Amino acid sequence: MSEFGDRVRGPLAPSAGAQRPLSVDDVDIEGGPLGRWQRINRDASIPLGLDRMERSGAVPNLRLAAGEGSGSFRGYRFQDSDLYKQLEAVAWEHCRQPGDAYRAFIDESAALLSRAQRPDGYLNSHYQTVKPDKIFAELEYSHEMYCAGHLFQAAVAAARAGCGDALLAVARRFADLLVNRFLTGGDDGIDGHAEVETALVELYRLTQERSYLELARKLVDNRGKGLIADSGMGPLYAQDHLPVREADTAVGHAVRQLYLEAGIVDLYLETGDESLLECSVGRWEDMVATKTSITGGHGSRHDGEAFGERYELPPDRSYNESCAAIASIHWNWRLLLATGQGRYADLIERTLYNAFAASTSADGTRFFYVNPLQRRADLFEDAYLGRRREWFACACCPPNIMRLVSSLGHYVATTDAEGLSVHQYVPGIIRAGGVTLAVETDYPWDGRVRFTVRSAPGTEWTLKLRVPAWSASGELIPNADGYAEIRRAWKPGDTYVLDLDMSPRLTLPHRRIDALRGCAAIERGPLVYCFEQADQDADIEDLALTPGTRLRAVERDLPGIGRTVQIEADAVRLPAAPPHGLPYATAPTDLPAGTPATATAVPYHQWDNRDGGVMRVWIPLA
Amino acid sequence: MSEFGDRVRGPLAPSAGAQRPLSVDDVDIEGGPLGRWQRINRDASIPLGLDRMERSGAVPNLRLAAGEGSGSFRGYRFQDSDLYKQLEAVAWEHCRQPGDAYRAFIDESAALLSRAQRPDGYLNSHYQTVKPDKIFAELEYSHEMYCAGHLFQAAVAAARAGCGDALLAVARRFADLLVNRFLTGGDDGIDGHAEVETALVELYRLTQERSYLELARKLVDNRGKGLIADSGMGPLYAQDHLPVREADTAVGHAVRQLYLEAGIVDLYLETGDESLLECSVGRWEDMVATKTSITGGHGSRHDGEAFGERYELPPDRSYNESCAAIASIHWNWRLLLATGQGRYADLIERTLYNAFAASTSADGTRFFYVNPLQRRADLFEDAYLGRRREWFACACCPPNIMRLVSSLGHYVATTDAEGLSVHQYVPGIIRAGGVTLAVETDYPWDGRVRFTVRSAPGTEWTLKLRVPAWSASGELIPNADGYAEIRRAWKPGDTYVLDLDMSPRLTLPHRRIDALRGCAAIERGPLVYCFEQADQDADIEDLALTPGTRLRAVERDLPGIGRTVQIEADAVRLPAAPPHGLPYATAPTDLPAGTPATATAVPYHQWDNRDGGVMRVWIPLA
Repeated sequence: MSEFGDRVRGPLAPSAGAQRPLSVDDVDIEGGPLGRWQRINRDASIPLGLDRMERSGAVPNLRLAAGEGSGSFRGYRFQDSDLYKQLEAVAWEHCRQPGDAYRAFIDESAALLSRAQRPDGYLNSHYQTVKPDKIFAELEYSHEMYCAGHLFQAAVAAARAGCGDALLAVARRFADLLVNRFLTGGDDGIDGHAEVETALVELYRLTQERSYLELARKLVDNRGKGLIADSGMGPLYAQDHLPVREADTAVGHAVRQLYLEAGIVDLYLETGDESLLECSVGRWEDMVATKTSITGGHGSRHDGEAFGERYELPPDRSYNESCAAIASIHWNWRLLLATGQGRYADLIERTLYNAFAASTSADGTRFFYVNPLQRRADLFEDAYLGRRREWFACACCPPNIMRLVSSLGHYVATTDAEGLSVHQYVPGIIRAGGVTLAVETDYPWDGRVRFTVRSAPGTEWTLKLRVPAWSASGELIPNADGYAEIRRAWKPGDTYVLDLDMSPRLTLPHRRIDALRGCAAIERGPLVYCFEQADQDADIEDLALTPGTRLRAVERDLPGIGRTVQIEADAVRLPAAPPHGLPYATAPTDLPAGTPATATAVPYHQWDNRDGGVMRVWIPLA
Repeated sequence: MSEFGDRVRGPLAPSAGAQRPLSVDDVDIEGGPLGRWQRINRDASIPLGLDRMERSGAVPNLRLAAGEGSGSFRGYRFQDSDLYKQLEAVAWEHCRQPGDAYRAFIDESAALLSRAQRPDGYLNSHYQTVKPDKIFAELEYSHEMYCAGHLFQAAVAAARAGCGDALLAVARRFADLLVNRFLTGGDDGIDGHAEVETALVELYRLTQERSYLELARKLVDNRGKGLIADSGMGPLYAQDHLPVREADTAVGHAVRQLYLEAGIVDLYLETGDESLLECSVGRWEDMVATKTSITGGHGSRHDGEAFGERYELPPDRSYNESCAAIASIHWNWRLLLATGQGRYADLIERTLYNAFAASTSADGTRFFYVNPLQRRADLFEDAYLGRRREWFACACCPPNIMRLVSSLGHYVATTDAEGLSVHQYVPGIIRAGGVTLAVETDYPWDGRVRFTVRSAPGTEWTLKLRVPAWSASGELIPNADGYAEIRRAWKPGDTYVLDLDMSPRLTLPHRRIDALRGCAAIERGPLVYCFEQADQDADIEDLALTPGTRLRAVERDLPGIGRTVQIEADAVRLPAAPPHGLPYATAPTDLPAGTPATATAVPYHQWDNRDGGVMRVWIPLA
């Protein structure tokens, strides 16, 4: 789509900001966990997803809308969005490693969508086939604009991947309808589920059609004014309780808040309205300090899939929806591009390697919807959400996971006037401007990252390397944004070696987090660890870490998991405490010191790949 | 209803069991908290409830069903049950202190119900007016038998109160329809919400119509065989995952499980089937040890209003529905009558004075639906459930509370072949057989209870007094069931003084309860205490009890609360810990010892009668 001056073949192509992103195919990820995720995503997850597009009703529903199929609508009213996310995943995959099957899927889907689309541009198989009289009449829960947003993102991806003319035409017809109705037509409706805002801004970036940006601006500006009817969940659920510039904390349905924030920062990037950046950063700081799991997950309540209150961070009932991790990465990526601050890349890394990575099984065929930090022995109350599943009735997560994995190359590095910034450490090749940089590393298992310049323009430029907040930086003094700066007239063959501190760490919670009092967690590099019953000699519920515990990293190859680094910790095995009478006693139960034991931890993102037993990230301190 | 040989004018009149209950009006409660609750229930709560019967749609809905009203159905499909519970409350109130207005309400309601009832006996205003084609076709969520159960209980209450002929006729017509369809008619349907089972047994006790008992038996025996269609909440939600004799732990929707248990023990009492008592006691022991809040509350999850898993007992997100406290008291009362064991009366007392009593404001005009053990500073995520409200869209709790308060006299004492057992200590008069016993006490503020025999048959009999598990019994040696036995040929004027230990107690949680680790609670007598911000000099979140804290009981009269005994505890005030960055740190934050302070607690059941600020039952130990 070079006629629009849009050169970045990736999810985000802002016209301003402190950092400029690279294309999905500017970075070849050649190994490491991210390389492994991309491989299983291509080999296992995407084929599974494509199969589900038929079986789940997503594609058949659209045939019904096109007047072609038989039967009746299946699934949720937002079922179309599954296909759109799947299309976006395939588009980035095609961008990364072109394939005829990918192009065919995009072309066939675009043709079907074009046939299903009404002449006026409207497109939603649920409302067209089930509730035509309710089109745009129940926006508080209809997800019509939410689905439109995912359509726009899919169309942008396909266009940037070079195979999206037909899909883009469908998207623009729908976008124009939205503009005619909700921007210039006098309808002040707002979708209960934010998503279309960030998508409209991106569609504007691709097409330079300014009305898309203006509609996004109107939707953001009007949120919080009570224009969304009550869906039965109250105004907080949909972030309609306060205007975005007044709300000081993330509330309600976590995925909605996080997509909304992405849209807010997108608007800032295109309009320069500082009040938008300011309010979003304010909520980010509050959220990070009081509403974020150690894994980077968000959403402390199953009820309403909601953020919960400050310091309400239960390990067992944390929701931490996979989609929330993805939406958080979207938001943080926009903040990083806007400000150049490494704290956003830090949170992307924490989220990526933990809350997000845990969402998918080691073989790429099963997915978590929720990502708690503890699984009790008897998880039967939540069998549906208890273990990873191949698919879900509400399948928002799997294709969302796939579209992020396919586009991971986009999130590794950026450029600015001074040079190249590397935010995530993956082995492979980074191409940016006239620079080609080879990265060799066994990160995150090892902390050494070796950069070799393969080609360079010859002039002086700066290589900026993120120094994660968890790493004692040693001789490196990061700048105020958290990056080590190495400025040189780099020549081909020049190398630089970054050493990050991979010592295992014992991490304690803030004293205000009631649900974690008296516990510790283990981290190493960017990885949060957890204790699974499968690795313990004793009942996990009888183990407690000794306060001065020594932590030992041990590389292993585990069945079901593959390569990993486990951490062994000095622990005590407490006498079993079988249930008897009320579990409250005036005097402390006699607490014998316990016998020496070892507690063994594995990276959290590798959990639930074995027997499905007990797991805990936070473990008591003796 | 003496023609049926039914002499107990109370909610429960079993034909067998270790203990025999008294009538509601056999006990005059003359003061103390229970006397106060009965007074405000009569003066404030019941008038408010009667007003709501019109405003909420409950009565108008039935007019619609009778073909008399205009408009359309309002509220939930179980809206009729609000009226039935209200009727039961009024009936017990009429039994206790007859009133023409009560009789008129019962008569008028019975007449309306009779007009609304279909000729075949069916009665449910929602299904009659909104979904007549779905009658008995969606039992998994219809609540039709649930509503019928509450109708039966109301009719039994009115009959025993001496004003129930018309209501009983309505109830019997519906019960006969249920028998014809679900017992002898070949329909194996079961209501997703247990309730009708215990009600059918009671209707059998009143009428001696054996088919009611047989239907209850069939419904209990068939539960857990997958005969309930999935309501979308899964089989555990409705206790349909396992037959009742196989399930070893309470699961799913707490109120459903607890009403089901009441029906199971009722069936045991009438059939002698020991397998029923055995399975119910097994679940009771498991529930008490692993799924019970210190307040006696049940249900750890908002999501599904569910029990949650073993040791999943969060203070902030505990659900502890007021109806669950009532249902638990029903179940425990049946177990107490069946076995004579004081542990069930202990749990009734704990539940009554804490989880249940907290449900109602000091003035009787506002009610809690959920009863958590902690309220955070910003409770806006749950404004609907955050503070007591006058009424609820789903108003199951308020009239349920009223029916229990009106019948409290029934739960104070019982008789057996040896004499009289007193389970709950309230000032007033107990009449049982030829015995009249006066009780003088300032319980639970004071531990002394003085019994004076006013009249007695002259023969030797035993006064059994429950020694609560929390009281160091001193010179009294309770029997294996937990009762002190005093056997004499009691003469008028004889007295006995029981002294219970009212020393404040520091209570610690079982180490398996992750959500309470490192915290303590305060109890005194049967009362669980809590800390409200209103009573502290410092931010409650900065207070921690010193491990060897001295606890001082101080009698006070507090605005909004009235008479109380507060407990002052030695504490430390920790330096404030404002949010900054991720709330997880490798090294412990420097923890200065804090400055000496006092933390002041009030009885939990008196909370939220002032400013609605922060509250916590469990407070950190320094």
